[in-house]
Amino acid sequence: MNFSSKLLENAVSEVSQLPGIGKRTALRLVLHLLKQPNSQTHNLTKALTGLVDHIKLCKKCHNISDIDVCEICANTSRNPEIICVVEDVRDVMAIENTSQFKGLYHVLGGKISPIEGVGPQNLTIDSLIEKVKTGSVKEVIFALSSTIEGDTTNFYIFKQIEKYSIQTSTIARGIAVGDELEYADEITLGRSIVNRIPFDKSF
Amino acid sequence: MNFSSKLLENAVSEVSQLPGIGKRTALRLVLHLLKQPNSQTHNLTKALTGLVDHIKLCKKCHNISDIDVCEICANTSRNPEIICVVEDVRDVMAIENTSQFKGLYHVLGGKISPIEGVGPQNLTIDSLIEKVKTGSVKEVIFALSSTIEGDTTNFYIFKQIEKYSIQTSTIARGIAVGDELEYADEITLGRSIVNRIPFDKSF
Repeated sequence: MNFSSKLLENAVSEVSQLPGIGKRTALRLVLHLLKQPNSQTHNLTKALTGLVDHIKLCKKCHNISDIDVCEICANTSRNPEIICVVEDVRDVMAIENTSQFKGLYHVLGGKISPIEGVGPQNLTIDSLIEKVKTGSVKEVIFALSSTIEGDTTNFYIFKQIEKYSIQTSTIARGIAVGDELEYADEITLGRSIVNRIPFDKSF
Repeated sequence: MNFSSKLLENAVSEVSQLPGIGKRTALRLVLHLLKQPNSQTHNLTKALTGLVDHIKLCKKCHNISDIDVCEICANTSRNPEIICVVEDVRDVMAIENTSQFKGLYHVLGGKISPIEGVGPQNLTIDSLIEKVKTGSVKEVIFALSSTIEGDTTNFYIFKQIEKYSIQTSTIARGIAVGDELEYADEITLGRSIVNRIPFDKSF
């Protein structure tokens, strides 16, 4: 691209570093900002620098938080004996939106993935095992996505905590509510038959 | 969305103000920035505030520029007698990339569009007419996109400058190089037959 302005070129080049945003989209976004009042860009940049400079990870669950111990961990009405292991803050938000879980979370910060260079030492697995060692945890729920990386991570953690007598479980895999059987993939359909549940418990 | 952090919520809400970026994409972008070194976010925000605070519009062609008169207008090897009228800086960049035009530009800053509340007074039409009045311009090329708004804007400008004895032209519409005839729309194909050119001039 043949920019008429260094300032514009610089802004486009920085915006296009974001994932999924190419040079053309970056130019469109930057020109949009130029048409808006300057205050919009100032608010945007203030929010972003404020975030990266002041954000903390909760000391207990490692979730993104403004304070040392996040609202969920600090909530005494939740059950600290059940820990749900998730990948990142988006999974916490998704599960919180269901209002079906009243235990605490443990945010790993990723999945074990040798291809992307993520090993167990890059995740918060040690801290999870410390929690289990104290004996205050009764159940660990694995809620990672159902991929090879997710299964590997689940298994790695399971191997380390199986010697402590706690319950481990994984979220149910099956046909999504509202989905047609004929379009389901074989593995999901197979699992949902093997792991069938009593009809009177299915409501 | 149920955010665990006000800083995160604020950043996502600001990023999702950008056109074509919803809450989910904004969250993905913001979480990406959190995983990168803080310096990346600082560079991004510096580039954006630098842009909106210090950008200028060229006093002659109204193109985006770092200086009072842009490089194209300041280039004495270009022909100031031919003015190409375009909508915005992206069109200037697109035409400059072809290396086929050696005149100057006039950036309107938009098209007349009553639906979007853009009238002639919101564009730099007056300044174009002033240029024509001085008598130094010999040809005005209309290079707006071929839409109702583009045609309206062309016609509005044409009506105001036709009394000055200058040449006016519009960029050729026709089948794109490499395109198949059978997939072309009727209007484009029709225009390309009516406005056919001598074969020996078509290379």
